[in-house]
Amino acid sequence: MIVVPDDLGARLQAGEKRALARAITIAETDDQAGWRLVQDVYATTGDAAIVGITGPPGAGKSTLINALTTVRRAQQRDVAVLSVDPSSPFTNGAVLGDRIRLTEHYLDPGVFIRSMANRGALGGLSGAALQATLLMDASGKDDVFIETVGVGQAEVDIVTLADTVVLVLVPGSGDAVQALKAGVMEIPDVIVVNKADHPTAGALMQQVRSALSLVPHEGETWKVPLLKVQSDTGVGIEALADAIDEHRRFLAAGGTLIARREERLREAVLTLAGRAFRRRLVAAASDDAAVAALLASTARSEIDPFTASSALLERLAR
Amino acid sequence: MIVVPDDLGARLQAGEKRALARAITIAETDDQAGWRLVQDVYATTGDAAIVGITGPPGAGKSTLINALTTVRRAQQRDVAVLSVDPSSPFTNGAVLGDRIRLTEHYLDPGVFIRSMANRGALGGLSGAALQATLLMDASGKDDVFIETVGVGQAEVDIVTLADTVVLVLVPGSGDAVQALKAGVMEIPDVIVVNKADHPTAGALMQQVRSALSLVPHEGETWKVPLLKVQSDTGVGIEALADAIDEHRRFLAAGGTLIARREERLREAVLTLAGRAFRRRLVAAASDDAAVAALLASTARSEIDPFTASSALLERLAR
Repeated sequence: MIVVPDDLGARLQAGEKRALARAITIAETDDQAGWRLVQDVYATTGDAAIVGITGPPGAGKSTLINALTTVRRAQQRDVAVLSVDPSSPFTNGAVLGDRIRLTEHYLDPGVFIRSMANRGALGGLSGAALQATLLMDASGKDDVFIETVGVGQAEVDIVTLADTVVLVLVPGSGDAVQALKAGVMEIPDVIVVNKADHPTAGALMQQVRSALSLVPHEGETWKVPLLKVQSDTGVGIEALADAIDEHRRFLAAGGTLIARREERLREAVLTLAGRAFRRRLVAAASDDAAVAALLASTARSEIDPFTASSALLERLAR
Repeated sequence: MIVVPDDLGARLQAGEKRALARAITIAETDDQAGWRLVQDVYATTGDAAIVGITGPPGAGKSTLINALTTVRRAQQRDVAVLSVDPSSPFTNGAVLGDRIRLTEHYLDPGVFIRSMANRGALGGLSGAALQATLLMDASGKDDVFIETVGVGQAEVDIVTLADTVVLVLVPGSGDAVQALKAGVMEIPDVIVVNKADHPTAGALMQQVRSALSLVPHEGETWKVPLLKVQSDTGVGIEALADAIDEHRRFLAAGGTLIARREERLREAVLTLAGRAFRRRLVAAASDDAAVAALLASTARSEIDPFTASSALLERLAR
């Protein structure tokens, strides 16, 4: 049983970094305690722009987030970074140069950086990551950047936590372009070609443009901007920040912002309710004489498991 | 949607091999259809002796099952084999010699052999394997042998489906003996040293005996028999069959047979009820205006997910 300090929610809402860090650790360790914490601070959620930064390993996602953070800080915005990419320098793979560059932000009280490498509590990685983004949001962060490789089911689930998804490519990202073309990868909201000074960057831009042209556009659709940046020098990063803002305005105007939010919270609510019901089932199996009798008659071949489960549902559900 | 012939259950209960094969395929493909089939035939379950045959790859489990089947057939007993070991010759790894030896039983109408390599339907491998053993039981099989390597969570779950667990070791099974010693591996009900003509078989017997002596015995406990066999020649197999029968009598006398059965069915019943409730939750989220409103207010930061899930549970559960 995790002990959650009574004032943790209030300290988190006051923007205290250590309270936020502690809260996320709680959410990672004990899903239920995490959701109770979210309950305390939920009224101050809903204002952060949740931005997923996805792309193949080596695309420079961390460096891009670093550069984006610099731009957002210059705009007087508070930033949180949630890295769920185990290969990210935010997590552990940093070479010395990276680490030094990131340190400037680590020391900035307006920036909170956190990696989440484990699978999270019962609800899985995406459940823990959702709680983390809500806690970051509640603590007053204006931007939450979620870094993920975006490949694999758990990683794709993470991407659904974002309002805006930015795909980062570099020359050599052939697989990712093929995946876009084949419709295997969801179309992101913004595409960035990083290391734009590379000699083949132009060719990559061309490939991406042609891949995008294959995707059918329906209704009043967002036209995916394709941007060139150089994360290490900051070239093009302000334009990227503008494109993210633009996409958010587009979502808000069309009502999609709240719809996306509802979609990701819906799954959390249903999962929590399902798990609570499961706990009731387990309790009834040991405490309720009628349920115990039902289970015993199943073992005596009198009532089959399907009929027994229907009877159990009849008893415990409306 | 799988079409289940109306008379499939009756044909299965009449002992028709093809009906049993079709029923297991249904259980593997569609968990719910499988449990409905089990419902039809459940009254004739409960008589089969479910025996788990576990041990490291190369221990000769398949050859042992082959020899045991010969003994059981001579006792006028019908046999079913469920192999959930992907490396088993029953599955696909047979060299020609193995395949020929097994063929005698394949052609015997009193023997049913089935492998289950995939992860099964929604309920997972152990859910599908449980349905398969119940269907085999209902079709009049006296013995159901479940072959599994017994390592890994899914495989350990399979072992819990058996009334009696036989661990098969061969000279060179050092890891398995260490696992027994360390208490990592559950103590089986019967231990067999296969290839007993091997020069180091005696030493292995000694190691196993010393590993067993380290395990604390509680109450009126079964004393695990340690037997030497040669599966390829049949030496010692009748004694093994006797030991299995003896263990079953021990379980029945102490009430443990029905308790073990109840334990494995309990999980199936709770899982089925939990999944049915989840379907109700999903339906309510789209069809019930009050639930839809609840989810919408969650997205507007008015009601947090934890509170919403409690309200949802209040509405759908008693």
